[in-house]
Amino acid sequence: MKLLEDRIRAEGRILPGDIIKVDGFLNHRVDVSLLRECAKEFGRLFDTSRITCVVTIEASGIPIATVCAEEFGVPLIYVKKAKSGNISDDVYSREIMSYTYGKPVTLTLSKQWLTKEDRVLVIDDFMATGQALNGLIDMLDEIGAELVGVGIAIEKGFQPGGAGLRARGINVKSLAIIDRADENGFVFRPQE
Amino acid sequence: MKLLEDRIRAEGRILPGDIIKVDGFLNHRVDVSLLRECAKEFGRLFDTSRITCVVTIEASGIPIATVCAEEFGVPLIYVKKAKSGNISDDVYSREIMSYTYGKPVTLTLSKQWLTKEDRVLVIDDFMATGQALNGLIDMLDEIGAELVGVGIAIEKGFQPGGAGLRARGINVKSLAIIDRADENGFVFRPQE
Repeated sequence: MKLLEDRIRAEGRILPGDIIKVDGFLNHRVDVSLLRECAKEFGRLFDTSRITCVVTIEASGIPIATVCAEEFGVPLIYVKKAKSGNISDDVYSREIMSYTYGKPVTLTLSKQWLTKEDRVLVIDDFMATGQALNGLIDMLDEIGAELVGVGIAIEKGFQPGGAGLRARGINVKSLAIIDRADENGFVFRPQE
Repeated sequence: MKLLEDRIRAEGRILPGDIIKVDGFLNHRVDVSLLRECAKEFGRLFDTSRITCVVTIEASGIPIATVCAEEFGVPLIYVKKAKSGNISDDVYSREIMSYTYGKPVTLTLSKQWLTKEDRVLVIDDFMATGQALNGLIDMLDEIGAELVGVGIAIEKGFQPGGAGLRARGINVKSLAIIDRADENGFVFRPQE
């Protein structure tokens, strides 16, 4: 998606440790009008008429998933990374390693809100190692819900998350895939 | 706001410890079309032509703040509750007690994205003791940003958060104020 690639080129920064900072428009300060364009693009890439909900993982996936849920006219469900007093004890949970936080976190989802009748579009802002997404998809498998697809705003193509999900046979669409990021800038994978 | 009060009456649940569960439409599974109506109501309650950004605290405030930011045509900034690799070291931070998690958390905001030139509308899904919001507002004071107002979807009127903020002279508007919640159901504070 050219609009997103252009924005990454203009405002993204590359930090040591392969960290790509896009916190001026995606995951700290957020340009919601850009997310709306991303949602429309996901609408072209997936058969959203089939889905019953958009699912993401808190916290940075929530803005884009919120806009997608509204765009497709379905509820948003965000999986929590810590058990809070706001959800019941009757939950699915799964421990994953968080790349962002550098420690294990527990994904938690109330059994009440997602069932085997659901057809799910997973949306996230970023994919690197894919650990959190794999944990979420394992949880959907356990529930028996249908995974219609996984839509990612920015995929780090030089990390194994995307290849791993595609090897699982999952319909992954990333709006911008960064294949290289170094002192010469960003190199994006060509896409149709 | 009648639409929100009706939804709380229909789907809200009251748990021991004064916990009000609205996780079927507000803070786990989210009805984004309801949030759009909330955003329009905030647009009537605040002079949103003056604001430069919408600010919230991760994670449960993000969906409603995302919709508000889009509605008012300004960026969303969400303050983080843990330092992640995605933001720089040059941050404002403030420790608060989280009512939701029952432990102290550190609010973190990159200095780059909010300055004394900003005029801020704070949006959150819930207010109980107001600890997180007071911490955020202290942070805005430190920055020197102007606080235009605080918009809350659901205020627990029997807890001290709202009264405390109003005593600070802050323009607080809550779309639904629950003054009592017990076995007889919800009692809402009358509003114009």
